[in-house]
Amino acid sequence: MLVLSHKDLLKAGCFNIPMALSVVEATFGKYAKGEVLFPDKVSQIFRQETQERINCLPATILTEKVCGMKWVAVFPPNPTRHHLPNLNATILLSEIETGFPIAVMDGTLCSDLRTASISAVAAKYLARKDSEVIGFLGAGEQAKMHLLTMRHVLPSLKVCKVASRRKESEERFIRQMADILPDMQFVPCDSEYEKAASGSDVVITAISAQLPLLQAEWLGEGVFYCHVGGWEDDYAVPLSVDKIVTDDWHSVKHRTQTISRLYQMGKLKDEDIYGDLYEIVVGTKKGRTSEKEKIYFNGVGLSYMDIALAYEFYKKAEGRECISLETLKESVFDDAKRYIVL
Amino acid sequence: MLVLSHKDLLKAGCFNIPMALSVVEATFGKYAKGEVLFPDKVSQIFRQETQERINCLPATILTEKVCGMKWVAVFPPNPTRHHLPNLNATILLSEIETGFPIAVMDGTLCSDLRTASISAVAAKYLARKDSEVIGFLGAGEQAKMHLLTMRHVLPSLKVCKVASRRKESEERFIRQMADILPDMQFVPCDSEYEKAASGSDVVITAISAQLPLLQAEWLGEGVFYCHVGGWEDDYAVPLSVDKIVTDDWHSVKHRTQTISRLYQMGKLKDEDIYGDLYEIVVGTKKGRTSEKEKIYFNGVGLSYMDIALAYEFYKKAEGRECISLETLKESVFDDAKRYIVL
Repeated sequence: MLVLSHKDLLKAGCFNIPMALSVVEATFGKYAKGEVLFPDKVSQIFRQETQERINCLPATILTEKVCGMKWVAVFPPNPTRHHLPNLNATILLSEIETGFPIAVMDGTLCSDLRTASISAVAAKYLARKDSEVIGFLGAGEQAKMHLLTMRHVLPSLKVCKVASRRKESEERFIRQMADILPDMQFVPCDSEYEKAASGSDVVITAISAQLPLLQAEWLGEGVFYCHVGGWEDDYAVPLSVDKIVTDDWHSVKHRTQTISRLYQMGKLKDEDIYGDLYEIVVGTKKGRTSEKEKIYFNGVGLSYMDIALAYEFYKKAEGRECISLETLKESVFDDAKRYIVL
Repeated sequence: MLVLSHKDLLKAGCFNIPMALSVVEATFGKYAKGEVLFPDKVSQIFRQETQERINCLPATILTEKVCGMKWVAVFPPNPTRHHLPNLNATILLSEIETGFPIAVMDGTLCSDLRTASISAVAAKYLARKDSEVIGFLGAGEQAKMHLLTMRHVLPSLKVCKVASRRKESEERFIRQMADILPDMQFVPCDSEYEKAASGSDVVITAISAQLPLLQAEWLGEGVFYCHVGGWEDDYAVPLSVDKIVTDDWHSVKHRTQTISRLYQMGKLKDEDIYGDLYEIVVGTKKGRTSEKEKIYFNGVGLSYMDIALAYEFYKKAEGRECISLETLKESVFDDAKRYIVL
């Protein structure tokens, strides 16, 4: 049984963008064929006021003969109370030939890479192929990871605009990303969200706002908008687009994201959702069909993707003697540059 | 984060019978006060024919500030197909102050000790204090563990009878147990189940029979019968006793144990169940009230007990440098004698 820390995963070459994208696409195919077990998550909430909780998300990829569980702790007071991240994740994997565990690993890299890879697979099918400008509302870990995966599926991207509540976050984003992507032109937006969104071919909100920051009129013709967080765009945004695509509408509609809220208010119906991403990946439904369409993508997280990706991590790390057991408490980008495969 | 193999747990002094019994009693008290989160388990079944599966059982002991998850693989074909045990378990623990994981451990010792400790706590309240003779149907791991815990709560036990399908199993049981309990008198029953049960003050079926082996007329006045397996006693057994006690009737009634089957057939009703063990431990209900009562105890497994016990293991092992990552593939009794605390 392998025990893999974040550093072990980096050293084993797991921070690999093309690998993650190809796992996500392949796993959508397996999901479509019924080769995935995907039970409901179990949530244990310890304090109602702060919603401190641990979610337990088991899943199985039958054809890969791997079953696993992602264990995600969400502790919103951590940053202010303990100077620790509000999220941490651990992944356990077992093979299903004899049922023995094969690995336990820090789950941060896997989670972050999975989220951004699903969004990028969405962009591959739903963004304009000639997209040149990407705009970010939010400059944190998820924004950075999204830039790396988006750039891979949209190699025409040349300009990256970024707006964050805090100027220092924009600066850190640009400093770290320019170091990894020297050919990209970066534009700090001085906390002006409109500046980041207007005129962008791809707009990404990766921000923990719980406020309608993004306005519908900022989105131009042909935009691909990727909603990563919770509630960060005005209700008019989803109501004004041509297609809404989700990773799993069945899950999304019971959450508290913008389109979930609209659904619960009765202002959005099942038939207003164009489809789930896997249907587009396997070709049951078409992706973008015109240069002018505005397309909205909402991801909620697919834990079976975490298990599929963690299993690829395991295969890369297999045979290594790598045992350092600290759970990641910093940014996945700290000290990661030399390990990233773009 | 500690990674604890079975051997690490042995060396840390976790194979400790009085500790396990005291954790179980204390945790029943916490459960009664609402200090335990105990969500439904998630079961992933990989092959319907063989019921090969992995169960995921999360739970939290709020007052101990510990949340955990037991991951139990049940692969019935393992012994014949791979010469491996049909069960293995892994336990993950996180503290709930900041939500970080603190330990991952082999779960076999914890599971086995927990099951036998719950049964022994039942015996403490439900068996006659002067019980001298204990009879086992089944001679496997659970039977052995039950003998160790039962002897602790019923120090008057002098004679242990054991009947198994295979003579060699009886012999191995006696060889291993006589080595640990030199004062106990052992009686092999040559596969005659009646011989093991008749005249015994405590009868334990710990056998994977799926057949009505134990007969009602073999049970004498004042007996405490502890049902550990699935279906191993005749329907007349529960129908002829004075009290039926469960560890968690709400869970038991949906399973496939003897009393679950009777409930599903309509031959046993909610009001026929005297109570759950925790009610007796905390004093809401009385335990044994006469020397003549026949009492039936049915355990189904309480995963929150595993988390409570695993946390005690963690505290014993804390501060140790103990990293050997193999999952246990043998008997917990192999090489364990010098570590057991009776």
